[in-house]
Formats: sequence, C-alpha cells, structure tokens
Amino acid sequence: MTIQPPKGTRDFLPKEMIVRQFVFDIAREVFERFGFEPIETPAIESWELLSKKGGGGEDIKKEIYYFRDKADREIGMRFDLTAPLGRVAASNPQLPKPFKRYQMAAVWRYDNPQAGRYREFWQADADIVGSEKMDSEAECLVAAVTILEALGFRDFSIRLNNRKILNGIIEFLGIPKEKAPDVFRSLDKLEKIGESEVLKGVTSAGVNDSKAKKLLQMIKARGSPGTILQRERKRLESYSSAKQGMDELEQIVKRCRAYGIAGKLIIDLSLVRGLDYYTGPIFEISVRTKREIGSIAGGGRYDNLVEAYGGRWTPAVGISLGIERICEIMEAEKMVKHAQTRTKVFVAVADEGLMENAIFVAQKLRAAGINSQIELMGRSLGKQLEYVDRVKIPFAVIVGAQELKKGKYTVREMAKRKQGLFTLEKIIQTLRKK
Amino acid sequence: MTIQPPKGTRDFLPKEMIVRQFVFDIAREVFERFGFEPIETPAIESWELLSKKGGGGEDIKKEIYYFRDKADREIGMRFDLTAPLGRVAASNPQLPKPFKRYQMAAVWRYDNPQAGRYREFWQADADIVGSEKMDSEAECLVAAVTILEALGFRDFSIRLNNRKILNGIIEFLGIPKEKAPDVFRSLDKLEKIGESEVLKGVTSAGVNDSKAKKLLQMIKARGSPGTILQRERKRLESYSSAKQGMDELEQIVKRCRAYGIAGKLIIDLSLVRGLDYYTGPIFEISVRTKREIGSIAGGGRYDNLVEAYGGRWTPAVGISLGIERICEIMEAEKMVKHAQTRTKVFVAVADEGLMENAIFVAQKLRAAGINSQIELMGRSLGKQLEYVDRVKIPFAVIVGAQELKKGKYTVREMAKRKQGLFTLEKIIQTLRKK
Repeated sequence: MTIQPPKGTRDFLPKEMIVRQFVFDIAREVFERFGFEPIETPAIESWELLSKKGGGGEDIKKEIYYFRDKADREIGMRFDLTAPLGRVAASNPQLPKPFKRYQMAAVWRYDNPQAGRYREFWQADADIVGSEKMDSEAECLVAAVTILEALGFRDFSIRLNNRKILNGIIEFLGIPKEKAPDVFRSLDKLEKIGESEVLKGVTSAGVNDSKAKKLLQMIKARGSPGTILQRERKRLESYSSAKQGMDELEQIVKRCRAYGIAGKLIIDLSLVRGLDYYTGPIFEISVRTKREIGSIAGGGRYDNLVEAYGGRWTPAVGISLGIERICEIMEAEKMVKHAQTRTKVFVAVADEGLMENAIFVAQKLRAAGINSQIELMGRSLGKQLEYVDRVKIPFAVIVGAQELKKGKYTVREMAKRKQGLFTLEKIIQTLRKK
Repeated sequence: MTIQPPKGTRDFLPKEMIVRQFVFDIAREVFERFGFEPIETPAIESWELLSKKGGGGEDIKKEIYYFRDKADREIGMRFDLTAPLGRVAASNPQLPKPFKRYQMAAVWRYDNPQAGRYREFWQADADIVGSEKMDSEAECLVAAVTILEALGFRDFSIRLNNRKILNGIIEFLGIPKEKAPDVFRSLDKLEKIGESEVLKGVTSAGVNDSKAKKLLQMIKARGSPGTILQRERKRLESYSSAKQGMDELEQIVKRCRAYGIAGKLIIDLSLVRGLDYYTGPIFEISVRTKREIGSIAGGGRYDNLVEAYGGRWTPAVGISLGIERICEIMEAEKMVKHAQTRTKVFVAVADEGLMENAIFVAQKLRAAGINSQIELMGRSLGKQLEYVDRVKIPFAVIVGAQELKKGKYTVREMAKRKQGLFTLEKIIQTLRKK
C-alpha cells in the first residue's frame, strides 16, 4: 500500500502543473502590468488573527486547520489572503499609500471535500490599500478581466452590488442593524438553496415574515447598470446609505466604461458575498460554459479590516481569482493547448561511449535556451527513443559515431517520424524557433 | 497593538519579494533547461509519511508542525520536498523513468528560531527518480552550479563524499552496521561542535575510544579528486563498499569534467549529511563570502526511499537549494541590483477631470507591456509625484490639459529630475527599451 496525500489535498504532476504555471504566469504578468507588487506571507497565522474571520469566535475552528504549537500557542493555516494582507497593512503603517499588492498562494479550509472543492486550494489576489476612490474598484476589475481574457475566457460577466445598498434596504425595512450579518449570510445562499430556504434563514435571524418577503422581493433587481441604477435609484434614494451605494456603483461603471469593460457589468442587488468584512462595493465574475455558470473571481471593499487588526483606519478593496475553478474550466472547455512536458529536445546516444559528446551537445542546446534532457540510464538507443515518445518530448538529437566524424547529428521530429542529418549550429538555429 | 506573524515566520514585502522572485525565476528557468519538470504537492502530509523521517518515530514530532485534524487523523506540515517526492514516485509507478522533477516551495520545521534560521523557509529542489547512473548526480550538480552562477555566485565549491565509503570505513573498523546511523549523526556535527564533542558522540553511540579516534582520523581526508581518490583508494580498496563508493565518485568527477565544473569539486570524507535516507554519493555546495563559508545547497542519492513509502524499489538522487541562505548572502554581499518596485511608470493627472485620459494612457502603456500605475486617490499633482518618489517608480507621465491639446504628455525621469514633452507613441517606444 502506498501512502496518499491527506484528505482534500492533491499532488499536481507535470502535465497539470504546466497548465497551472501558465495561469499563474499570466496572472503575475498582468498584475505587475497594472502596478501591483508581489508579497508573500506565512502559511500559518496566529489564532488571534484568524479568529476575526466573519462573525468571529470559536465556530471558525471548525472551518480551518487549527492547532496548538509546542509552546501551546494557538495557530491555524490561512483560509484566505485578505486577512494576512490586513495584518501586513496594520503592522506596516510606513508603506506608502496606495499599497497595491498581489499574492498568489495556497489557502486551506477544513471543508468537506467534494467534486471541485478541496481543502488546499490556490488563490491569486490583487488588492489596493489606502484609497477610498472607486477608481480602485475599477482597477481591480479590469486587471481580473485582462487576466481572464489573456487565458482565453470570452463569455463572462461581472455582477456588482454594494453593501451600502443592502444596508439601505435593511434600514428601509426597519430591520435592526445588528441582524444584518446573519441576514446577509442567509441571502448569500440564494443561488444554492433557493428562495424558500433563504426565507426561512432570514426569519430565523429574527426578521418577521412580511419584512423577509419584502427583502427578497427588493433584492431581485438585476440588469444592466443603465436600467437598474436609474430604476432603483428613485426607490432607494431617500435612504442615505443606499444612495451613497448607488453613487459609488455609478462611479465604478463610469471608470469601467473608460477601461472598455462596462459591457460586462450587471448590477445584481441579490449579490451579497459571505464574508462579514465587506463595507462597500462587492463583485463576482462568472463564466458561462456549455455546462453551467460558475464564479471564478470575487471581491469587494473592506474599509474596516486594517483597523480591526490593530492598525490605523485604512480603506481597502481587492479581488481574488480562484485558480482551481479557472484551471478546471480551462481543462473541461479544452482551452488548454499545452505540451505535456517543458522539455523540447532529448539528446540520445547510439553508444554509451559517446556520453561526453552528448553532454557537449546538451550544454550547447541549453546555453541557447533550449530545454534539453540527456540520456541518464545507459539504455539502448531504441529504449531511449521509446522514452522520448512516452513523455512526448517533441525532438530527439541522436549522437552517433559515424555522423560525429562528419560533425553532424541526426534530428528526429518524433510525432512525424521524420529525421535528417544536420550540424549543431543548424539544429540550434532551427529548434530555437520551434 | 498590531498582530504579528507566528514565531519563526516572516512576511516578505515587495522589496524582498522582487529579489526572491529573481532567484526563483532563474532556478525555474535553469531546471527546465536541464529537462526537470514542475510538480506541486500539499503543504500538509500524513503522519504515516512524515514519521519515516530519519530514524523515524515519535521524536520527529518535536521537530515538525504536528497536529490532529478534526477527524483525529495525524497530520503534519512537510519538513522537506524529498519525502513528498518519494510518496509521489511510490504511488505513481506509471511515471516514465527517469522522472526528473523540480519543486520550489515552503517547508516547515519547528526549530528554535535564530539569526538566519526560520520555521518557514523555501527550498528549490531538483531530483532524478529511476536512474542508478552517476550521470544523474552530475546533472543535479551542474544544474545547481548553473543556477548559482546565473545568480552571480563565483567563489563556491562542491564537497563530495559517498555513504558507501563511510560504510566501508565503519566496516573496516569493525563497528556494527546498526550503529552507523547514530555514528553518522554525530559525525555530521563536526563543523559545528568540533572534534572532541564529536568523539564523545561517537563513543556514546557504542564505539570504543580507539576506534572512534581512528574513525575521526580516517575521515579527515580532504582535497582535489585527483589526490584523494588515488591516495585513499589504496587504503580502502579491500572494503567492497568503500571501493564501490570510490568508483562512483570517479564516475561523477569524470562527468563533471565533461560539464566543465570539475574544478569546483573537493572530495571530503568528513561530509556526512544528517538524513538517514542517503545510500550513495552525497554533496554540499558552499560559498565563500567575506564573512564566512556557508552551505547553500546539498543533496545526495537515496535509493531506498521510494520503496520505504510502499513503492517498487526505485533509485533516486537530488539536490536542494536553500533559498533563504542564498537570498541573505546576495543581500549581504550586495549582489542584488534590483529595483524596489516592479512598476516602471506612474500616470499622473494635473486635474482629476483628466482621469479618463489617464486611463487611456495607462491602458496603452500596459498593452505595450510597460508596468504602469495610475493615480487612484484623487491627489494633487504634487502629492502624486511625492508618492512616485517614495515608492521609487522611475518615470512619471503627466497628463495635463494644455499639453493634451497638442497630443503630448510630460515625461519625468524621477531620479534625474529631467522632463520633456512627447507624443504617446514616442513615450512607449522609449520606455519599452528602458
């Protein structure tokens, strides 16, 4: 019996890793093009930090990897990249603002593993700390859209809402403020569990039946920014928080128009997002595939988090891309045209006595930036070429004694079973381009 | 009071991350040039796997992050990347051999934090699974040397030994085989604690005083491959294991000569390396700086590990680069000439009403692959330029109403306080090259 990875975690072998690296490389390149700078934080965080998640408290221990270290300190593995950023911003007030950072890393949640859900998964986050302006929301959105388009996604949309609008509606309905977090957590499940279940949730949060029904009715507004922001504005204008929320969304829409991504925006008052720390605009990017509509990115404004972690009050907004969902969809939709290996050439020897010549060839290829393997097992030429076929390396350069005398090498294009005799200079020149 | 990262862990802010990314990027590029393929494994592993470390057993719990998950499974955080690779190789017998993989990731050890030692640190490993040939040792070494040279390291050497030689010496002295692991663990501390302390360790492992002294005498041999392999060969040839060890080292030296790195090799019979799983050649790369000689990479052959994890018997060898030590030395020796930001241009506005023009400029710059920030806080032009100075972005493009009428923008080279008026095409053309 071999040993397996812990439940809910996986190994990524080269074939999968090559796709994942493609995704991470594009995300990194785009984030940097938008002026986000890299940071890295520890995989583990103190319970003091982690316990501030959501409503806070002991319940979180059920959702995360929590343990005590040998000095009896309470520790857990990070469940997202926003909490660590909040800590970094709080304890580094010297960082010039806006502090624009990206981080691409694993996070851990003690969920029940199911199809497409893991206990270890990767996120790619970009956040802007220090700016209250809606320009920041627009920047996060356009960076995410640019990444998704670079990855080949076409049919996706950005749902947009504002916690201030939701607060305004709650205020309008006379629901006490302190019930808002529970109400929001119920509303967040609308797509998953349906209206009647959500209604139960909202009433059990202490809202009476008629108000709960009215609430569900009011958040049904959904459509293009033009229609919704005008139609609902009249209805909600008298509630200052909702009005401010509308103004902010208008600002975002205006900036998105300048960026050329406004066509993807849908105002959706039923968008809530589960986390308690959001204070303003919230958004979610969904992609439509042949099978389903799936969320692949989400985020929002969380102006009070840095202060909650002991820092000065500092506004902040960010977006998080879900790497697992993105990779799965790319795989399922056959958007991936990647090789199964990063190696381009295998340097084979007709005879083990020619290994030093093979090393010479491999080193020349590598110096020219051509990824090359070399025979390492003393196998026959036939076995070497079988291996090259199996691992799908596209080319083999064969070092043979006779050809060597003429200063030449056999190059075989494996898939086409085509081969020819060339000088090393010619081989390098040709392979560099392929 | 702000919240701190857990003891022994750190945040890496952009300035440090830019150096680290430079190191990781070079390591990745070189590994791939040598035909190593990427894999990723979970941060957590089962206790079943982790417990096989070294001598195995409960003692390891003191050295690692160990805990029970909510289903009472015993879990720990990986302490290296070799154990997970062993597991992957054991449970994926279908992988064609040689399986050449690299992995660059964090590992965790519950060490006592001290200068330059952390509980979370990064390693960059390359391993070859499936080959018994010394060609594999040479490949690992030359890949590591290529990385170090690309990073700017010049004065470093590779110490080389073979566990088979050490076993031969122990056999020659009549020390029982089962005492070897304890003896090796003592010898491993020679540089740290000195000869007399090691002598105590070896004798307390059950070796009598005169044999222990003889042992320490015998492993003192150290020098160029030419001298040591000849001089010691005569002395050790009668012990089969030592003779085989000598033959293997000769093979490695021969291949390293072909690769042009033999001048860096030192045969050092006192090199032991702490881990129990080594079965053949072992090596360590040390760099000489103004201050000290420090080990920055190490590895060796571990032919029995895959089988110990439940797989078929599969030979394997690998090398691990210590990213923290490498980054520290590069910092201390001023080998790093990196910018403090990945951003090249800041697009500033003379007036907030020009934000849409600024967005147009930023998008053009970004489309041309020029990393660009844009004003996000509605600040005055003076405040914007103060920020650009503080975060050390090299250029500012200023969007002003008057200049805009002429289709031009002011470009300021921040460090030189030089500025001029150019068209956007000209700006992109110039900045692309810088």
